[in-house]
Amino acid sequence: MKVAIIMGSDSDFPVVKDAYDILKSFGVTVECRVMSAHRTPDKAIAFAKNAEHEGFEVIIGAAGKAAHLPGVLAGCSVLPVIGLPIKSSTMDGLDSLLSIVQMPSGVPVASVAINGALNAGLLALQILSIKYPEIRAQFHDYKKQMAEAVEKKDANLQSQL
Amino acid sequence: MKVAIIMGSDSDFPVVKDAYDILKSFGVTVECRVMSAHRTPDKAIAFAKNAEHEGFEVIIGAAGKAAHLPGVLAGCSVLPVIGLPIKSSTMDGLDSLLSIVQMPSGVPVASVAINGALNAGLLALQILSIKYPEIRAQFHDYKKQMAEAVEKKDANLQSQL
Amino acid sequence: MKVAIIMGSDSDFPVVKDAYDILKSFGVTVECRVMSAHRTPDKAIAFAKNAEHEGFEVIIGAAGKAAHLPGVLAGCSVLPVIGLPIKSSTMDGLDSLLSIVQMPSGVPVASVAINGALNAGLLALQILSIKYPEIRAQFHDYKKQMAEAVEKKDANLQSQL
Amino acid sequence: MKVAIIMGSDSDFPVVKDAYDILKSFGVTVECRVMSAHRTPDKAIAFAKNAEHEGFEVIIGAAGKAAHLPGVLAGCSVLPVIGLPIKSSTMDGLDSLLSIVQMPSGVPVASVAINGALNAGLLALQILSIKYPEIRAQFHDYKKQMAEAVEKKDANLQSQL
Amino acid sequence: MKVAIIMGSDSDFPVVKDAYDILKSFGVTVECRVMSAHRTPDKAIAFAKNAEHEGFEVIIGAAGKAAHLPGVLAGCSVLPVIGLPIKSSTMDGLDSLLSIVQMPSGVPVASVAINGALNAGLLALQILSIKYPEIRAQFHDYKKQMAEAVEKKDANLQSQL
Amino acid sequence: MKVAIIMGSDSDFPVVKDAYDILKSFGVTVECRVMSAHRTPDKAIAFAKNAEHEGFEVIIGAAGKAAHLPGVLAGCSVLPVIGLPIKSSTMDGLDSLLSIVQMPSGVPVASVAINGALNAGLLALQILSIKYPEIRAQFHDYKKQMAEAVEKKDANLQSQL
Amino acid sequence: MKVAIIMGSDSDFPVVKDAYDILKSFGVTVECRVMSAHRTPDKAIAFAKNAEHEGFEVIIGAAGKAAHLPGVLAGCSVLPVIGLPIKSSTMDGLDSLLSIVQMPSGVPVASVAINGALNAGLLALQILSIKYPEIRAQFHDYKKQMAEAVEKKDANLQSQL
Amino acid sequence: MKVAIIMGSDSDFPVVKDAYDILKSFGVTVECRVMSAHRTPDKAIAFAKNAEHEGFEVIIGAAGKAAHLPGVLAGCSVLPVIGLPIKSSTMDGLDSLLSIVQMPSGVPVASVAINGALNAGLLALQILSIKYPEIRAQFHDYKKQMAEAVEKKDANLQSQL
Repeated sequence: MKVAIIMGSDSDFPVVKDAYDILKSFGVTVECRVMSAHRTPDKAIAFAKNAEHEGFEVIIGAAGKAAHLPGVLAGCSVLPVIGLPIKSSTMDGLDSLLSIVQMPSGVPVASVAINGALNAGLLALQILSIKYPEIRAQFHDYKKQMAEAVEKKDANLQSQL
Repeated sequence: MKVAIIMGSDSDFPVVKDAYDILKSFGVTVECRVMSAHRTPDKAIAFAKNAEHEGFEVIIGAAGKAAHLPGVLAGCSVLPVIGLPIKSSTMDGLDSLLSIVQMPSGVPVASVAINGALNAGLLALQILSIKYPEIRAQFHDYKKQMAEAVEKKDANLQSQL
Repeated sequence: MKVAIIMGSDSDFPVVKDAYDILKSFGVTVECRVMSAHRTPDKAIAFAKNAEHEGFEVIIGAAGKAAHLPGVLAGCSVLPVIGLPIKSSTMDGLDSLLSIVQMPSGVPVASVAINGALNAGLLALQILSIKYPEIRAQFHDYKKQMAEAVEKKDANLQSQL
Repeated sequence: MKVAIIMGSDSDFPVVKDAYDILKSFGVTVECRVMSAHRTPDKAIAFAKNAEHEGFEVIIGAAGKAAHLPGVLAGCSVLPVIGLPIKSSTMDGLDSLLSIVQMPSGVPVASVAINGALNAGLLALQILSIKYPEIRAQFHDYKKQMAEAVEKKDANLQSQL
Repeated sequence: MKVAIIMGSDSDFPVVKDAYDILKSFGVTVECRVMSAHRTPDKAIAFAKNAEHEGFEVIIGAAGKAAHLPGVLAGCSVLPVIGLPIKSSTMDGLDSLLSIVQMPSGVPVASVAINGALNAGLLALQILSIKYPEIRAQFHDYKKQMAEAVEKKDANLQSQL
Repeated sequence: MKVAIIMGSDSDFPVVKDAYDILKSFGVTVECRVMSAHRTPDKAIAFAKNAEHEGFEVIIGAAGKAAHLPGVLAGCSVLPVIGLPIKSSTMDGLDSLLSIVQMPSGVPVASVAINGALNAGLLALQILSIKYPEIRAQFHDYKKQMAEAVEKKDANLQSQL
Repeated sequence: MKVAIIMGSDSDFPVVKDAYDILKSFGVTVECRVMSAHRTPDKAIAFAKNAEHEGFEVIIGAAGKAAHLPGVLAGCSVLPVIGLPIKSSTMDGLDSLLSIVQMPSGVPVASVAINGALNAGLLALQILSIKYPEIRAQFHDYKKQMAEAVEKKDANLQSQL
Repeated sequence: MKVAIIMGSDSDFPVVKDAYDILKSFGVTVECRVMSAHRTPDKAIAFAKNAEHEGFEVIIGAAGKAAHLPGVLAGCSVLPVIGLPIKSSTMDGLDSLLSIVQMPSGVPVASVAINGALNAGLLALQILSIKYPEIRAQFHDYKKQMAEAVEKKDANLQSQL
């Protein structure tokens, strides 16, 4: 099981880290790279073209503003590409979101919420889990623990009011 | 290989049909249902809860306006859920898009473009293809044909100018 | 008189508290719970289904981002449901607002302003007051005091200029 | 049981009619009026001030553009006021929605979706039903029939594929 | 020469002050009041109705969120009403702006920029100046000084580069 | 009494006509011109600079898209300038509105609603009426007739239900 | 003098044609191609990489929705790239505009208005004219004729009122 | 080689500085001026009209809010004008962007991203480079160094994980 996380700028890593961490905690091999659709297009395109043969099964592309990286990766690979829109200093992430989610017909990108790195990682796990029963099993546990955490918070709030 | 397409209203079917058709053309079994997160929540939730055990591997949820269906399906299943925002008569689809893509941490939905039904189907195929080599092979063909179609249009335009 | 306030995350409580406080100050019994349409859908749905029989008369649902909680509660109950959109770290609350207010035909949610918790509480009181004259009477007083507070501020400003 | 529907312009009636019809079909007395917060403010304010004493229990205010009518009615009455934003020829209803839903603290308006007249009527019925068991009973039936209609559409779609 | 500045909340005064100051510096009599279209509608309406007879010539209405105050004042007076949209804690002032500027046909409000208090004051002065030559004369001076200030900043920047 | 209506393109005239007509019907002299801030800047600027001395008292500037005309006129004249944002084929008039209403400090433009030509004309009349009692008197009549028209529509609707 | 116009889809040609025509009318050699950043990335990238050596001096990239084409061309070439956002069936062109104009630091795209094909062509001419005096001379004429056309429309309108 | 940078306010300089610095570092003569389309229209227009004859080859216009400066400069000059939208205290720069990019047909402005000053400078260099081979050569180096910087960041991230 191998997932690539490609981000357009290393300044995106503090946001992207949640995706990296959740994937690692499920035992997935993660390659985390800085490549830009605009500043290093050759690197990004070469990576996307080779990703299938290098054993990657899912690609997460994270980028901000006119966020072309996930779409370019999807154009150059048959792998499922998850797009993670990064909020930048203007437009509150709306530019990143629309640049990623509004892909024209023929080349889909699976967009998650603005700065939704944890969900990008979880979505990659859900995709892997259609093939790997051990990821599926862990995902069931994760979902249960998440529910229990909410229930505990509910109980805490009740006890305080 | 079995994919579910759940739509919130049968009036969404003319848009959703592109997803259905592409999946069928790849030989995938598709169950196409009308269920509403608001009007038939029990049906929708029961479907989502049983989907894994009934052999579904991907769910596509299509809905408009305050489009809760994909998120509710994702909340009740471990399967990857693709959200397809349907443009309605007001707000140009922005309400549908934000209701689907901005999922809170823990429960991802893989959003495609507003009315991007073909891409919803293609994304489901890309997800299936990490497990089924025959889908992967077809997808390579599809991508090649798509490129050739663009090249042909390019040639046509050249010949007309 | 019994009102339920359901929030999607305990981190919403500092905002939600204004609704809780105003209801308590009018002598209404309030049950304040943390339940998520996505992380604990069973709890949320069970609560909504039983709410009428447990004597609740109004439900307030508070949630952020793709804020499905009020709509899901409304789908599973005949009680009037007030939706309180919570502003999150991106999109300035627009996602929460549209996810709550743009409900499709058949299942209304009574939306108040983004982070408008006091108004959510006041609206619940106005609804209760069609049945409970003592709430109506208090509400008349509240409205009068509110007007007097504005008049006092007006006088203060006049005296300072 | 008496509900007032106030609209800012008679050109809003074709949209508003859904609210009127559903209320009548439940046996509610409905007074349907054209009054403007800007062109006939005295009428609108006098109506709102007298509404409680004339036996109205809920007010629906429908208006477009800078849609002040519901807020002005709410400012002059203790009754619950439902705001129905009407889509006009520019801005796709966003101006109407924000003018209605973003009410400042102290004076709530219960906003429904843009052009969501049926939901405005249903919300009024849900509010009435906290006092009138016969409305509650009918509402249970309505909700059941709505679910059955969706199920029938689901069956129809199944039979056609 | 008498101008009224009406604001919906005394918390708007720090923004509104620029309008007050510029009017005073031109020798205009200014009455600065806190009145709310929602919390003290009677006061606001009475003020607007009497404004013409009390000698006011222009009204500035400042309000935030669902900002109905300028529109309500304009509905109850024949005087020119300037609307000053106040930025609040959500929506970045877009709600205030649309609530003020999108007035329906028949009752105009002269909207200035979000938080554009100085311009609200200057616009009032321009309106007064069609009647009062001494204001017109001062306005010519003001415009000249403003230009000179820009030219001085231009010279400063040149000298620093 | 003389008002100038300047529009950026003659294609704006069908919208602008409402302003022209209402001003004429009040007996105001109106000069209606096509000048562009971008295509004929010299004409537009010369007009604005001479407007005061040629006896104009109010200028209405109508423009669409990046609608600079009203702001440029306001920069070159001390007269009150009313900005009328014209809806164009994209962006639903939001670009026109923001380009007109968001004027920087020092140079106000009095913005009305998108395509709100009647209100632009009425606002010009309200401004003139601070100097011309005969306009003020007519405006009182206009407001009364407008109210009566609404009341008649109200009566009509009542009689039909 | 050689300019390339690259569009993402041949369906964009009816819009793009204005750019083609104006360039041709100035005597510029224009190569007009259909290439997609997503469907034929190799073609698009190869074109951009070779453009300088093949004698192109400006590239116009036209695309809709998540419009990555101009940015990808700019990433692979040192030539000035003009981005022309095409309005598609949803979002009124806002997605195209933000995807094109919000380019991250280091790789500029010169964006024109949504569907602003004529301006894309004119901008290319202005760029060429810094090197080619004959284009500059023609551009002076063009600007003069444009002004005269506006003045003629102004005269026509005057004669009709 | 001479480029003009005109900004609407000296408060824009901290943003604009990136354009100035990159141009200087390429050896371009830069004149950096504060002129306002609204407060000093004569200066701005005179500058634009003389720019060609004073040897300027590109103009960068930076402005915020209703940002008319670049459009006015473009209206008064045949030189290519780059528009740099400055983010102001409200609207997150959307007003500036739309006021600059949505120029009507006939007068293009080459818009870059909100606060995208570096890209404004780089775009000016790309335009100059169609005439000046030494700028073109430097630009090739710049692009290579930018790619190497990304690759170094990629390597750094790899070494830390």
